[in-house]
Amino acid sequence: MSLENISSNKLFGGWHKQYTHESKSLGCAMRFAIYLPPQSLEQPVPVLYWLSGLTCTDENFMQKAGAQRIASELGIAIIAPDTSPRGDNIPDDPEAAYDFGLGAGFYVNATQSPWSQHYRMYDYVVSELPDLIEEHFPVSKKRSISGHSMGGHGALTIALRNPDRYLSVSAFSPISNPMNTPWGQKAFMGYLGNDRELWKTYDASELIKTSTVYVPALVDQGSEDSFLPEQLQPEALRLSASGVGYPLTLRMQEGYDHSYYFIATFIEDHLKFHAEYIL
Amino acid sequence: MSLENISSNKLFGGWHKQYTHESKSLGCAMRFAIYLPPQSLEQPVPVLYWLSGLTCTDENFMQKAGAQRIASELGIAIIAPDTSPRGDNIPDDPEAAYDFGLGAGFYVNATQSPWSQHYRMYDYVVSELPDLIEEHFPVSKKRSISGHSMGGHGALTIALRNPDRYLSVSAFSPISNPMNTPWGQKAFMGYLGNDRELWKTYDASELIKTSTVYVPALVDQGSEDSFLPEQLQPEALRLSASGVGYPLTLRMQEGYDHSYYFIATFIEDHLKFHAEYIL
Repeated sequence: MSLENISSNKLFGGWHKQYTHESKSLGCAMRFAIYLPPQSLEQPVPVLYWLSGLTCTDENFMQKAGAQRIASELGIAIIAPDTSPRGDNIPDDPEAAYDFGLGAGFYVNATQSPWSQHYRMYDYVVSELPDLIEEHFPVSKKRSISGHSMGGHGALTIALRNPDRYLSVSAFSPISNPMNTPWGQKAFMGYLGNDRELWKTYDASELIKTSTVYVPALVDQGSEDSFLPEQLQPEALRLSASGVGYPLTLRMQEGYDHSYYFIATFIEDHLKFHAEYIL
Repeated sequence: MSLENISSNKLFGGWHKQYTHESKSLGCAMRFAIYLPPQSLEQPVPVLYWLSGLTCTDENFMQKAGAQRIASELGIAIIAPDTSPRGDNIPDDPEAAYDFGLGAGFYVNATQSPWSQHYRMYDYVVSELPDLIEEHFPVSKKRSISGHSMGGHGALTIALRNPDRYLSVSAFSPISNPMNTPWGQKAFMGYLGNDRELWKTYDASELIKTSTVYVPALVDQGSEDSFLPEQLQPEALRLSASGVGYPLTLRMQEGYDHSYYFIATFIEDHLKFHAEYIL
């Protein structure tokens, strides 16, 4: 697999770089960003995968969250993939809706036409991208995963399904019970059809009920998030977790909203949480 | 003067808010952003004015620099104005160039037609905006000023011309000698005509030679900044400062470029520098 470097910026003593590569899972060229802390010059460093929310690319988190300052202190690399396949040959929602199709891959492997050929973000994030990263960059196999909103859903479901691959998981404002909320139902119906048993395999509040190997989890949710009542349902996640004694810390942050300003405020806590497990 | 609040986000215990108002100096509606740290609930706080570079609005710095974390710790408000007048009635460069007209006001009072009616960013930043801020928000009259690139030029020239109004000044990658570099020459010729004596009143490397009241100054410049050799000329500023014994600290930061990743890396140093004078 070949990588093309398309940008490079020094920050906090380390380097933010963007690359493109041909993705086998997705059948298109994909861009991702990596932050390599200064420690990576000396030895392989652990990795935090960050999954972004609806409409985002690899850039939103890298530009707005301020995570590199702490990653540089701790010696953690950060990988930010895109949120869907992209390109002229990639089908999009007929109405170009922001919550389905391009920029809205939901981190699933689609089973329905015309999505199933390219919309395989689950495989891309779980397997193809880590293989690529671990082949080409000075990183160890110690992985954590985090994300925001749709990406918080992605991080939780991926960690719950792959407890052998991730040492910790966290999320900001995750879509916690997608099969019972509008964004999730639209995405699951479109990508997965009407098989609700299949939906459960991509729903954190369902997966947590049957998990046996526990990945420590931290979730932050803003109390003034306009999507909270209809779309996010962290209470369902809390109930499922407490039902099985899952080690989930869910914090309601008073007055915060759904924006990157919220993420910037608490990303230091999340990185330090992950550091306990991957350092 | 009436203010309309158009957005509000909590971050780091404080609040980022955007407002619009009708500007008398500029003859149009203007948007600005303010960060109010939590300390502003208790008492008036000092203010850092941030002037952005070419193509920016009030949003770039607030979203990308990560300054609010430190402003919240220190108890400093930050104001980010737009970089030019805006609106359907505002003339723009006939070729919509990025370095003249909209998004490129250069913080001068234009004297040439058709710019002189609206392009009065100097008056707006020096007088109208602080008057508005100090009337409507819990801030003191202790002011510092900083900026990036075109905004670094703005911060330096405004502080040098108004040492009674600012307690400290800093800049990232400023256009340090605009009358001798292409961006500056284009802007000055357009906004000010060919009167080079007038140009000198907006050129930091000239102003510093004749200043008598010294505002402490910190400048950071990335060594890998692609605009450094042709456009920025910090060496001219250093020479002028050392010629008169001006208290300027100019730091060349090895490997850094012109982006907000550079600003994010060193903004903490700048805020702590200003804190020595305004707290």
